[in-house]
Amino acid sequence: MKKDEDFSEWYASVIEKAELRDKRYPIKGMDVWLPYGWAIMKRVDQAWREEFDATGHREVNFPLLIPETEFKKEADHVKGFESDVYWVTHGGLNPLDIRLVLRPTSETAMYPMFALWIRSHADLPLKVYQIVSTFRYETKMTRTFLRVREIHFFESHTAHATFEDAQQQIQEDLQIHERLMRRFCLPYIVSKRPDWDKFPGADYSLGADTLLPSGRTLQIATFHQYKDNFSKVYDVKYEDAEGARRYVHQTTDGMSERLVGAIVAVHGDEKGLVLPPEVAPIQVVIVPILEKGRQEEISRAALEVYHSLLPHLRVHLDDRDVRPGEKFYHWEAKGVPLRVELGPKDLAKGEVVIVQRRSGEKKSLGVLGLHSRLKSILELIQVDLFARAEKVMKDNITVITRLEDARDGINAIPWCGRESCGLTVTERTGMSVLGTPYYKEAASGKCAVCGEPAIELLYAAKAY
Amino acid sequence: MKKDEDFSEWYASVIEKAELRDKRYPIKGMDVWLPYGWAIMKRVDQAWREEFDATGHREVNFPLLIPETEFKKEADHVKGFESDVYWVTHGGLNPLDIRLVLRPTSETAMYPMFALWIRSHADLPLKVYQIVSTFRYETKMTRTFLRVREIHFFESHTAHATFEDAQQQIQEDLQIHERLMRRFCLPYIVSKRPDWDKFPGADYSLGADTLLPSGRTLQIATFHQYKDNFSKVYDVKYEDAEGARRYVHQTTDGMSERLVGAIVAVHGDEKGLVLPPEVAPIQVVIVPILEKGRQEEISRAALEVYHSLLPHLRVHLDDRDVRPGEKFYHWEAKGVPLRVELGPKDLAKGEVVIVQRRSGEKKSLGVLGLHSRLKSILELIQVDLFARAEKVMKDNITVITRLEDARDGINAIPWCGRESCGLTVTERTGMSVLGTPYYKEAASGKCAVCGEPAIELLYAAKAY
Repeated sequence: MKKDEDFSEWYASVIEKAELRDKRYPIKGMDVWLPYGWAIMKRVDQAWREEFDATGHREVNFPLLIPETEFKKEADHVKGFESDVYWVTHGGLNPLDIRLVLRPTSETAMYPMFALWIRSHADLPLKVYQIVSTFRYETKMTRTFLRVREIHFFESHTAHATFEDAQQQIQEDLQIHERLMRRFCLPYIVSKRPDWDKFPGADYSLGADTLLPSGRTLQIATFHQYKDNFSKVYDVKYEDAEGARRYVHQTTDGMSERLVGAIVAVHGDEKGLVLPPEVAPIQVVIVPILEKGRQEEISRAALEVYHSLLPHLRVHLDDRDVRPGEKFYHWEAKGVPLRVELGPKDLAKGEVVIVQRRSGEKKSLGVLGLHSRLKSILELIQVDLFARAEKVMKDNITVITRLEDARDGINAIPWCGRESCGLTVTERTGMSVLGTPYYKEAASGKCAVCGEPAIELLYAAKAY
Repeated sequence: MKKDEDFSEWYASVIEKAELRDKRYPIKGMDVWLPYGWAIMKRVDQAWREEFDATGHREVNFPLLIPETEFKKEADHVKGFESDVYWVTHGGLNPLDIRLVLRPTSETAMYPMFALWIRSHADLPLKVYQIVSTFRYETKMTRTFLRVREIHFFESHTAHATFEDAQQQIQEDLQIHERLMRRFCLPYIVSKRPDWDKFPGADYSLGADTLLPSGRTLQIATFHQYKDNFSKVYDVKYEDAEGARRYVHQTTDGMSERLVGAIVAVHGDEKGLVLPPEVAPIQVVIVPILEKGRQEEISRAALEVYHSLLPHLRVHLDDRDVRPGEKFYHWEAKGVPLRVELGPKDLAKGEVVIVQRRSGEKKSLGVLGLHSRLKSILELIQVDLFARAEKVMKDNITVITRLEDARDGINAIPWCGRESCGLTVTERTGMSVLGTPYYKEAASGKCAVCGEPAIELLYAAKAY
């Protein structure tokens, strides 16, 4: 299956061949996580935990169900979600007194508790996160990882004394994401979402978008400044040093299983998945090349190599009774970054053959100190994957001055700043407006819509 | 709060003081997991993963929602659960065509997929597990960890060629539990549940029960032999070596957050939690005893000790600016197994003072090689906690020959084997019948109900 001919089909077939998800579950948009797919997701979860634990966030876990009464308190928020949520209306055979919503996100579950937890300025900042399933009653066509109804979700929620403190938090979030996305080998642009497309209830929203080979962008993270919009509704106050009661200022940061979809889409090739070493459940697979009469000797040597690598790397020894070619094919489809082959000739020289998954590059290495050589190669692969993807993304950001020039990839369009012109961009190009570059680039010339002087660039793209 | 005077109040107050859960969430029986409680739960999750991964099970993750049509296929199963489940009836503002149930357990979600996954005998055994939230519309009074509406749940599901293979699986499960419960320091008895109280759809069910200080038993694990009861309904078949199509035989093994409740209840004392070292998020807390004029020197030494322990143990340095006594109180309530105190006198001698959480035992140890000494002490604590709890449980198993002698703890009652006499035990004692000892003990004498010859013992207890 060619990636550049029919991306959608290629994408679905890679996921199937690598055994990441099974989409035959009887509810559309709720795919079963198969062991290998779940193992990748757990690596991503682990990366989230490490980065957010290290920055003073604490992991909590809130209930899935939210009473309608709490859910409906913030007017914009409800309006943004009410056509999208699943409702629990019955317990056993009886209707519930108060209907319950399956969380689409957890503001309305968490903030009534924040109101109990936060008393004084000494309780701030409050920084928590959770990794949970969220639910959207998606009516558009679903697609594995990218548009689903049960979403494996990360959400951090913070509360601060002032707006400026909350702004600082968003800076910290952006730095965290710099590190995370290097681990996932996903380049991205950060946009300030247009006012007409911000998160329901937010003061403003930032979005991180990556570019898929289909030419469409995919939102892979969002950052919201809530100001005191929610704290006023849920009465989340603190006593400041002078004894005055003030509303907290809040932020959130969200990511999801979409990251796995992005990794599949950005790095995969005709042979299947290509996993960044950081998220690969298996970094190195050992395949013994057995020769008649010398099976035992080679098997034993392979086992020795396996044990020498085990303390240092996520390694797997494939000792199944099938042909090496079949094993190569199997582990290539699963995107294992490095294959170690060990045959009779290698054995004689005290060497193994290393094959890189992406490049196919082969070389022989001595078994002595092999683990540290492999570690170095994995680090180089990690850097290389990111750099390649970054180049592709950058090559596909085009400044256009006329809407009719809009094309696949990311279009940067000079803009006068008026909503009406922004909406016209979508109308006339059929593309989504991602917003304005967060890391400002100077805009010059005229608004591509109205011809008035441009004050900034507007990103537009076909988006998932 | 005295544990033996009012167990329920003591239990609730320990959980609150240790900051494990917050039960002020606006839905009863759905408590928020606070960071420390969630950290303990994650340790338990990790233990589950290690034991089940090591025995060839693979972790999957199935959708939360189950279509009514799948859910209602197995008649006994539905009957057992229909008054207990939450129903999703609406997506957005519209009623769903097919109502969805929040999984109470995942047989009806998984087995339609098993029917797709299993083709031939080479696909067997199939051994998977998942760690997810399950839901019960509980109408009785809820109690943190023990009786809740959203349950943090472990479930393994296996499929085998024959009934005997499935029997072997249950043996493996029992061995896994021997290891797990030593990690959690929870002694237990295994009973074959009476036929009238087996899992809905099972051929037979085993239950593992521990004894809480209230004199009541708590089911902490269940093992079910499904035979081909579910495979016939969900059409899960394999082709055997002769080409014949046969139904698989299935088992499940279930555990939940109740284990954390059991650890709290069994080991806690008047000062709060007492955590087994294996599940303690912090195994060792270092408290510097600062003396005026020597703060810096002691702080530096404490930091050195901290860094010497960090690679070996889960250690925390409490360098907050509060009195040592307050810190002691804080970490005792949280059940940290070992406290390391470091004051000016200790510093002079190159020593630290070690205080054990449960016994209060103090001793001085040199800082050289401290980590391995502490590791040994933690291992002894682990063994000691299990042994103490086991003694308490064994001392509270009493053989009684007359129902009027039934008392708190576990009653072992000679029984003729007839259901009517079993039901009479519950009627006349108000106790639950746990079943017959799985590891058979000889029964002699007469059925305590009807006076006919007894063929086995029946366990009865007040149960949570």
